[in-house]
Amino acid sequence: MITIIARCSARAGRAEELVQLAGNLVDSSRKEEGNVSYDFYADAADPAKFTFIEVWKDQAAIDFHNATPHFQGFVEKAGPLFAGPLDVALYRKLS
Amino acid sequence: MITIIARCSARAGRAEELVQLAGNLVDSSRKEEGNVSYDFYADAADPAKFTFIEVWKDQAAIDFHNATPHFQGFVEKAGPLFAGPLDVALYRKLS
Repeated sequence: MITIIARCSARAGRAEELVQLAGNLVDSSRKEEGNVSYDFYADAADPAKFTFIEVWKDQAAIDFHNATPHFQGFVEKAGPLFAGPLDVALYRKLS
Repeated sequence: MITIIARCSARAGRAEELVQLAGNLVDSSRKEEGNVSYDFYADAADPAKFTFIEVWKDQAAIDFHNATPHFQGFVEKAGPLFAGPLDVALYRKLS
């Protein structure tokens, strides 16, 4: 399994739109066969910062996800709402 | 519930020691009554980078954890192994 932590920040005044788009992305992504979990979080200290924590069966599941219409649509619609680049890192669980 | 993402980097040559200490911390922390989950991950792109993803029932559970001998012992022993400060952020799940 592969865990992804993807962090992003919303431009001033655009956080609500980002939360709505992310909610739709979460719903669609959880339905993918290769998805184990897909959750979206707000930073408790900064209302403009958000994080996705995603768990995938394998790299093929991630590749499939990245090509889905719901992910591509999110990237297209959410892109203008981001204050900076999405910070994405992949992890493997040690313990 | 409160999710914590805590990221750290090991000094050159100290990653194995850090992984061992973190494994002990994971085992002890999971036994706490206020802990929901406590996992430790290696960054797939950088063998010196690690991340804890922790879920706690509430802030009281986090306060209790921070005062436990196993957490305090980890901080004391792992401190010299870190290449920089621990980057800790608290999150609430939105979706």
